[in-house]
Amino acid sequence: MQQTKTLKELAEYLAGTVLGDETCRVSGLAPLESAGPDKVTFLANPKYASKVEGTRAGAVLMAPGSENYGRNVIEVADPYLAFAKLLTLFYVQSHHPRGVMPEACIGNAVAFGEDISIYPGAVVGDNVTLGDRCVIHAGAVIYAGVTIGADTIIHANAVVREGCRIGNRCVIQPGAVIGSDGFGYAPDGSRYYPIPQVGIVVLEDDVEVGANSCIDRAALEVTLIKRGTKLDNLVQIAHNCQIGEDCMIVSQVGISGSTKIGNHVTLAGQVGVAGHLSIGDNVIVGAQSGVPGSLAANAGYSGTPAIPHKDWLKSMAVVANLPNLRKTISALEKRVAGLEVLLQEK
Amino acid sequence: MQQTKTLKELAEYLAGTVLGDETCRVSGLAPLESAGPDKVTFLANPKYASKVEGTRAGAVLMAPGSENYGRNVIEVADPYLAFAKLLTLFYVQSHHPRGVMPEACIGNAVAFGEDISIYPGAVVGDNVTLGDRCVIHAGAVIYAGVTIGADTIIHANAVVREGCRIGNRCVIQPGAVIGSDGFGYAPDGSRYYPIPQVGIVVLEDDVEVGANSCIDRAALEVTLIKRGTKLDNLVQIAHNCQIGEDCMIVSQVGISGSTKIGNHVTLAGQVGVAGHLSIGDNVIVGAQSGVPGSLAANAGYSGTPAIPHKDWLKSMAVVANLPNLRKTISALEKRVAGLEVLLQEK
Amino acid sequence: MQQTKTLKELAEYLAGTVLGDETCRVSGLAPLESAGPDKVTFLANPKYASKVEGTRAGAVLMAPGSENYGRNVIEVADPYLAFAKLLTLFYVQSHHPRGVMPEACIGNAVAFGEDISIYPGAVVGDNVTLGDRCVIHAGAVIYAGVTIGADTIIHANAVVREGCRIGNRCVIQPGAVIGSDGFGYAPDGSRYYPIPQVGIVVLEDDVEVGANSCIDRAALEVTLIKRGTKLDNLVQIAHNCQIGEDCMIVSQVGISGSTKIGNHVTLAGQVGVAGHLSIGDNVIVGAQSGVPGSLAANAGYSGTPAIPHKDWLKSMAVVANLPNLRKTISALEKRVAGLEVLLQEK
Repeated sequence: MQQTKTLKELAEYLAGTVLGDETCRVSGLAPLESAGPDKVTFLANPKYASKVEGTRAGAVLMAPGSENYGRNVIEVADPYLAFAKLLTLFYVQSHHPRGVMPEACIGNAVAFGEDISIYPGAVVGDNVTLGDRCVIHAGAVIYAGVTIGADTIIHANAVVREGCRIGNRCVIQPGAVIGSDGFGYAPDGSRYYPIPQVGIVVLEDDVEVGANSCIDRAALEVTLIKRGTKLDNLVQIAHNCQIGEDCMIVSQVGISGSTKIGNHVTLAGQVGVAGHLSIGDNVIVGAQSGVPGSLAANAGYSGTPAIPHKDWLKSMAVVANLPNLRKTISALEKRVAGLEVLLQEK
Repeated sequence: MQQTKTLKELAEYLAGTVLGDETCRVSGLAPLESAGPDKVTFLANPKYASKVEGTRAGAVLMAPGSENYGRNVIEVADPYLAFAKLLTLFYVQSHHPRGVMPEACIGNAVAFGEDISIYPGAVVGDNVTLGDRCVIHAGAVIYAGVTIGADTIIHANAVVREGCRIGNRCVIQPGAVIGSDGFGYAPDGSRYYPIPQVGIVVLEDDVEVGANSCIDRAALEVTLIKRGTKLDNLVQIAHNCQIGEDCMIVSQVGISGSTKIGNHVTLAGQVGVAGHLSIGDNVIVGAQSGVPGSLAANAGYSGTPAIPHKDWLKSMAVVANLPNLRKTISALEKRVAGLEVLLQEK
Repeated sequence: MQQTKTLKELAEYLAGTVLGDETCRVSGLAPLESAGPDKVTFLANPKYASKVEGTRAGAVLMAPGSENYGRNVIEVADPYLAFAKLLTLFYVQSHHPRGVMPEACIGNAVAFGEDISIYPGAVVGDNVTLGDRCVIHAGAVIYAGVTIGADTIIHANAVVREGCRIGNRCVIQPGAVIGSDGFGYAPDGSRYYPIPQVGIVVLEDDVEVGANSCIDRAALEVTLIKRGTKLDNLVQIAHNCQIGEDCMIVSQVGISGSTKIGNHVTLAGQVGVAGHLSIGDNVIVGAQSGVPGSLAANAGYSGTPAIPHKDWLKSMAVVANLPNLRKTISALEKRVAGLEVLLQEK
């Protein structure tokens, strides 16, 4: 039973302006191509502006001044953000607290916040602290001594190992592992001696960790992910790393041990970063790049080894053309040899 | 207690022909090098033809006309496929249904097919539908509202999140995550606003998903994997993707959001594909390639950025030779400078 | 309640020598920068030698002859190894056996060693053999017929599939999957026929497997990881591989099927190795490299395709300089054309 809202109500919620029929009622959101008359859609990328003409949507979220082809429009400064906020309004229900369900396993001396939910098959170790309204889904395992903040969601089969601390409003997707042992071994002649990893992982508030991502505990102190940073699926964060605030770490990125990353950094998919580096604020690293050294702030980088993005684009253009370049060089060699013969003859 | 079969029986099962002793009894399969006289082996790659001479196997599956060195042979059109079918014959036992085992946790209003098996520690949420003969292994978590088809196997500690739909004869390896939240955030000035991911994942029939692979739910509608497609381990499929039929997505591949992939596409290991692309039918992308743009059908591509495979091979040959090429250019510069001096003098 | 030790006691334990106050008492370890007077620190990398001057640590582990700036020192041949051993001494407590805890699920005919621990929510299948002092954490799933050696730790939500064998003193981090089906399909005209994977995985003694790593079972026989090899997180080992002794396989590496790797091999992060190759002893492959062919022993390699590391460094230097090289060639072409005109005129 989806609720319905008028465009007027939505515009008020979004601090936007209706152009067209503000009494029109809608019940949810859909893409430009498939939205019906009971749905709101949005135009964020001007590339798709012509699709507005063909949409059957009840209304379109748009930036002021866009061509509206006679559709109902809610003008907002940032249509993509407005779309996200309406998704929350229409689809996100506050979680009804379930309490500790019968098949959950709870250790000794667990401190429970209010209105928590612990699903069947979840295992919570001794001396764990759980904040208000936190949700531990089925099969998740929380080792002893962990602290989890308020409104945090731990999805099914995620694992948080001993002593780690997770902030408020964090989301841990299924299968993610927080606090696995760092990869540290001391060569002992021919074999490897495992170095005990006695530190922890700390996730500050509003951190999100993707499915099956791994964050290793520090050797001695803390592997730290700061407020607001989001990790996609299958990401690897090695021991002793520090990741700044509001970073976007895209799927399958790997960051080696003890590297320190600034605020608002974006690492695109499959990027690899070596250990003991420093990456400045606002850096953007292109997909699949390999970063062997520290990177200065406020710039984009690409390639393996990563270089400034513009230089990389130029190099890549030449790489694709290398066989021709080699032919040019061979032809030049012949012409120069011909000139040399000619000159000797003269 | 392995069953035994005569070569005559096997040839009939495979629609092949015995050359040699058709009463010879065998009890299983083994590689050319290690097979004993009670085992069948196979020759699929002509590169290994000489190993037939030394094998102790009771019989060899071969294409018609291959040199048999006096061994018992079952001639078949496709020895590799025949080998696969005999593996099924000798080793695959139909699963004996276990029903809902005592330590499994079952929600409300679950619809059970016939002859299902749900192992201890598995958790099945409310309103789940389970097809005939499906198997839910220990520790697997099926969120509310999921539909699972007949003869599908969900291995231990795999997770299927709310509302996703899985077809018939699918296999989900341990730890795989189906329906995790897509990686979607709207920048809100300096921070990121999480975009609710309210779509689902649909796997059609005969889809297989490797261990610890992740398929994100769509933002609004459906992330779709079509019939017969196989995903290896640690693969990442982002939200809103559509993967065609009978694709092979090899280990550690990552596909970014909203990309549409045709039928019979092969992405080799560690390939990365950018978002919002279209990859044509029958495309093959070489290992570790990075695909930044759409790819036309019926062709092979390699490299980062991916280019036609033949062009990439040529470029790579030059890259390996670049230091020499640079020397050639330096030498040319000197020769030209010499010529210029000579000409000025004349 | 951390225990305290005198520097004299520590030096005896490490077979080292105290310079300074051997009665000084310490209670643990910390990095150079943050250690207080009750902590031991260490200097392993001469690059950080100057930090010794500023440390507040009670003592510094150092190689003989290093400048000590008046600090208490324990001289040892290998300060990094000494640091690892002191971590064990101060922080690692022998696991107090818990037995089979009430909410664990145990199958039929399980053989238990002495002093084992099986945590709530762990599931152990029929006919499993568990060595002395092994620990099975919450939510781990051990399928039927598995053998696990003495002093081995299986962390939460890890999975060991049917029939696999794990040696003594192994550590399996959370979410790792041992024995998933290999990725094998025989093309059957247009579709793929799944090849039953009837082999197993064998991990010898002292093998460690990182969080969410995957090791596929062999098609027919054994995927083998030999004694002492360590796998980091999110590593993929395909079916039929054989990895030698004391290898270091860093995070997100992928090794394709049937590849054989020697002893003491290091594969750095995100390396990809093709199938059916042979990698010699003591090989080191640089991060993100792609290995398409076999590699001779006792050498370092880098790049995609991987070439000897020194050659790769030279090529990469040229790649970064390619746009300039192209300009040089264009300039040369003009100069040669000028010379040709000049010569024709003469």
